[in-house]
Amino acid sequence: MDVMTRPDAKRPLGRPRSTAVDRRLLESALGLLQEGGPAAVNVQAVAARSGVAKSTIYRRFRDRHELLRAAIGSAVAMPTAPPVEDARERLAWALAQVQVVLEDVLGRGGVASMLEDRDPGFTTLVRDLLAPYNAALVQLIEDDVAAGRLREDLDSDAVVTLLMGSYLGELLRHGHVGSDWVGRYADVLWYAIG
Amino acid sequence: MDVMTRPDAKRPLGRPRSTAVDRRLLESALGLLQEGGPAAVNVQAVAARSGVAKSTIYRRFRDRHELLRAAIGSAVAMPTAPPVEDARERLAWALAQVQVVLEDVLGRGGVASMLEDRDPGFTTLVRDLLAPYNAALVQLIEDDVAAGRLREDLDSDAVVTLLMGSYLGELLRHGHVGSDWVGRYADVLWYAIG
Repeated sequence: MDVMTRPDAKRPLGRPRSTAVDRRLLESALGLLQEGGPAAVNVQAVAARSGVAKSTIYRRFRDRHELLRAAIGSAVAMPTAPPVEDARERLAWALAQVQVVLEDVLGRGGVASMLEDRDPGFTTLVRDLLAPYNAALVQLIEDDVAAGRLREDLDSDAVVTLLMGSYLGELLRHGHVGSDWVGRYADVLWYAIG
Repeated sequence: MDVMTRPDAKRPLGRPRSTAVDRRLLESALGLLQEGGPAAVNVQAVAARSGVAKSTIYRRFRDRHELLRAAIGSAVAMPTAPPVEDARERLAWALAQVQVVLEDVLGRGGVASMLEDRDPGFTTLVRDLLAPYNAALVQLIEDDVAAGRLREDLDSDAVVTLLMGSYLGELLRHGHVGSDWVGRYADVLWYAIG
């Protein structure tokens, strides 16, 4: 799975950056997001966790939302063409990508906050960041339709919703998502799209 | 849609009940849940909203969780056999049922709280209440499989997850669920199960 940092993602004040410091800040922000949702990500807490002075953080990021945007942006890699040819395996690959975004990047707190729109700035920045990600997923599905791998009249946008929804539905019903999640839903959804 | 009250749902202290007062309490609890999630449902707030004295509430319900259990239990009707024969229409019917539970009963605050397990007592009581509901949905699907309406090797439990997940996925991606949600996902999921 491509969870990688893009050190050049955003340079708000146009000054040269200390890559090691940046990485520490983004990792701290992601860790706090994972553990406590977006409300836990503020400059004070990031300073405490990273050991970087608040003044240094403010020289790099205008506010906590800009820090969150950079942190999430650094962790979400755009979905590129899956490394497999088989359409069912491509579906499993897409499910695994979605799991990374929901579980390892946004976390339960981030997902819950978005559903409630508890922190509108956070909701907006995540939707902005995920818009090209979702569009790329839709495009991959449409490429497979064009190549005759998937059925012609497929509602590809709805498929993206089902990729995410199968994860969210399991979490709501059972409080966890089983290790067989990818294989299980690749099987069910395969019938829907193939 | 069957959102109806079951006045005999729970009589914790075994005393005769004033139906009008009970109804006011359960409606107030549901209204608070809708507007502010489970954290907003406490005896103080229910008393203020319903105009019923706290002492009267405590004579009926041990605590806020018992009140929440009665309120949600009164609003969730067990899914019975759908009133239509056509399998795609039965699927649309099941989606509409799920929408009532997620949107009109639990609300965004209730769903978000469960995903985060923010209030473990609430999570548990909703899972308890929804367990027979989910089992009934699974049974309806398996009846359709047995009747030859749906394909034989169907993972019926996964279908229940997809019914809920298609709602949750739309909400996460777009912040609202369109009025065409039932028809749209009945179309996509129909391919998965038929």
